[in-house]
Amino acid sequence: MNLVTLDLEGVLIPEMWVAFADAAGMPELRRTTRDEPDYDKLMRYRLDILGRAGVKLEDIQKVIEGLEPLEGALEFLNWLKSRTRVVILSDTFEQFVDPLMRKLGYPTLFCHSLNVGADGFIDGYTIRCRDHKRLSVEGFRKLNFKVFSAGDSYNDLSMLRAADRAVLFRPTDSFAAQNSDLPVAKTHAELRGIFGAFMDGQEVVR
Amino acid sequence: MNLVTLDLEGVLIPEMWVAFADAAGMPELRRTTRDEPDYDKLMRYRLDILGRAGVKLEDIQKVIEGLEPLEGALEFLNWLKSRTRVVILSDTFEQFVDPLMRKLGYPTLFCHSLNVGADGFIDGYTIRCRDHKRLSVEGFRKLNFKVFSAGDSYNDLSMLRAADRAVLFRPTDSFAAQNSDLPVAKTHAELRGIFGAFMDGQEVVR
Repeated sequence: MNLVTLDLEGVLIPEMWVAFADAAGMPELRRTTRDEPDYDKLMRYRLDILGRAGVKLEDIQKVIEGLEPLEGALEFLNWLKSRTRVVILSDTFEQFVDPLMRKLGYPTLFCHSLNVGADGFIDGYTIRCRDHKRLSVEGFRKLNFKVFSAGDSYNDLSMLRAADRAVLFRPTDSFAAQNSDLPVAKTHAELRGIFGAFMDGQEVVR
Repeated sequence: MNLVTLDLEGVLIPEMWVAFADAAGMPELRRTTRDEPDYDKLMRYRLDILGRAGVKLEDIQKVIEGLEPLEGALEFLNWLKSRTRVVILSDTFEQFVDPLMRKLGYPTLFCHSLNVGADGFIDGYTIRCRDHKRLSVEGFRKLNFKVFSAGDSYNDLSMLRAADRAVLFRPTDSFAAQNSDLPVAKTHAELRGIFGAFMDGQEVVR
């Protein structure tokens, strides 16, 4: 029996920090895990900028309320859920992502949470479980699932490598080059084709 | 961060074997895990009856196509998905349950599979993972989720006891008596109230 794990930002929804950076005119917040492999370093960098600029959680949430899932993502996800079980493994925070989860029909999401003060400022964050993408995949495999994964960046690598089969979705050129053994999908239609082939036990090469 | 695991039959959808037994006029198939705690014994009993009666998988699927989720189950599930993450842990078989999963919006389901011959008869079944309900809950807790569970019968007991907090949904009198420390919900509204209290960290006593 199969189970699919998906990264969220860049695969089903836009990069939320990038969207906020553009909406707020704060280009220094455009850095993502695609640019900075050290997640804690990236988050300290982001929260430091927000604190100095006086940005509250609600300011970010207002921007995210206006975002939509990536084009074709909902149809892809609905197709995938009808064929197998899907768990989204993301390093996002539940307080950010709720409006977009609603638009995706509330798929099963494993992520982290923000620490928000009574004044509405983000004081910090709680990583629910370090390296949870890899540990989740390993846990599902121990439950005798064959696990197929898709992701786009550095924080997906341990998940992709722990899975039975993996695919890169719209990776950066450098990430694709560093993982040249993995197939690449540039559209949700291609991703659907590759997962279909995985489920049918067919070979897929780049 | 919370995660809810739910039994399926009797909690969100009708007992499928009972529904088939009634539709096919085969009352000997009305036995469920609520009556027989030994699941392998129950399944051998069921498949033996089907084989002798010449019943194929498609005969059972036709009946299940006509079933609906329990009244209020879809609204309950949608509310729960909007508040937390939900994984359904069931000892059903994926070939049986697909039409009802569609009607529930394809929630994440961990279950087993039937072995079906080229002639369409059910030759046997593959338990994906023995005691998977308990092992799944233990796995989710290792990923630092606080796990809340609901179930109605003997095959849920190890799941309910592995969870941080548990509730019985419409249990038999004997199952309720044997687990008198657990709260009981008789309706989905009551179940919603109890899960809400769990999420808010409140005490719930029967």
